[in-house]
Amino acid sequence: MNSEIKKNLGFIFGRRSIRVFLPGEVSDEQVKTLLEAAMSAPSAVAKDPWRFVVVREKETLKKIADALPNGKMLPNAAVGIVVCGDIEAAHDKQLSYLLQDCAAAIENLLLAAHTLGLGTCWLGVHPRENRVKAIKEILGLPENIIPVSVVAVGKPGEVKEPQTRYKAEKVHYERW
Amino acid sequence: MNSEIKKNLGFIFGRRSIRVFLPGEVSDEQVKTLLEAAMSAPSAVAKDPWRFVVVREKETLKKIADALPNGKMLPNAAVGIVVCGDIEAAHDKQLSYLLQDCAAAIENLLLAAHTLGLGTCWLGVHPRENRVKAIKEILGLPENIIPVSVVAVGKPGEVKEPQTRYKAEKVHYERW
Repeated sequence: MNSEIKKNLGFIFGRRSIRVFLPGEVSDEQVKTLLEAAMSAPSAVAKDPWRFVVVREKETLKKIADALPNGKMLPNAAVGIVVCGDIEAAHDKQLSYLLQDCAAAIENLLLAAHTLGLGTCWLGVHPRENRVKAIKEILGLPENIIPVSVVAVGKPGEVKEPQTRYKAEKVHYERW
Repeated sequence: MNSEIKKNLGFIFGRRSIRVFLPGEVSDEQVKTLLEAAMSAPSAVAKDPWRFVVVREKETLKKIADALPNGKMLPNAAVGIVVCGDIEAAHDKQLSYLLQDCAAAIENLLLAAHTLGLGTCWLGVHPRENRVKAIKEILGLPENIIPVSVVAVGKPGEVKEPQTRYKAEKVHYERW
């Protein structure tokens, strides 16, 4: 890849999982921008089954962190964005579409945050039943709302180099 | 959102589903760049279960198009990138992680293509059993490889305005 292209695609290659956060605000306007980015992802038959819970209260972030083995840093983030899907709204009520649609939205959110100078970490929730159950209880989610992940967002406290994990052996041509 | 931010995030808001393609090449180097972008998405426990089949042969693209109700334009695209997941490689062999990981990679691929001036359309495969079966047969995919989507990539033959489908009622604060 030439350096010009690499630079133009820095918004993708520069996004890395940030697990250390510094004190620092994420404004309501920034959160809205992240959600606008998330909700410009494509979704199956444009059903847009994604739903979001924006959490700033430390007490709630601590409860969520307790439910997520890899989420211990969450209370240090300025905000946690819980990305959920409404199974009733998903195309044909299929979990597969719900998961794909939410994941595309999450990726947009991560990339937009990186462009705004914010750090993020995608904390998996689904399909772990105990995590799904805990988050539904903590946030009071209705039966039809499935939490897919929690995205920690805050001022990055670590610097990571841009990278790709491209591996040629994962690419086939014309057929397997 | 102020216009400066909107411009910086144009790579996200400007990506739209392109269903009309003009004749025009997508180089091998461009395809590699798209795959490098795809493979810089995060994945559960960095298992990177994604696999790709790059299809240029018109005969194969036609066969795939026949299996996809919304994919009739595929043979007009320069290339079709079939995004698959290896269920044996996915974290804890969970389909949910496979789907989320592949969807994040697909979104990166779409955004990178848009930045390169290419048009894309995400053509859903999973969870439709008849589509999964047909694509596995056409491409000779092993048992453990699940096709998730086909991305049509080519010279865009239609122009669409940037947009977000943000809806305030899909956002909750602190709890549902």
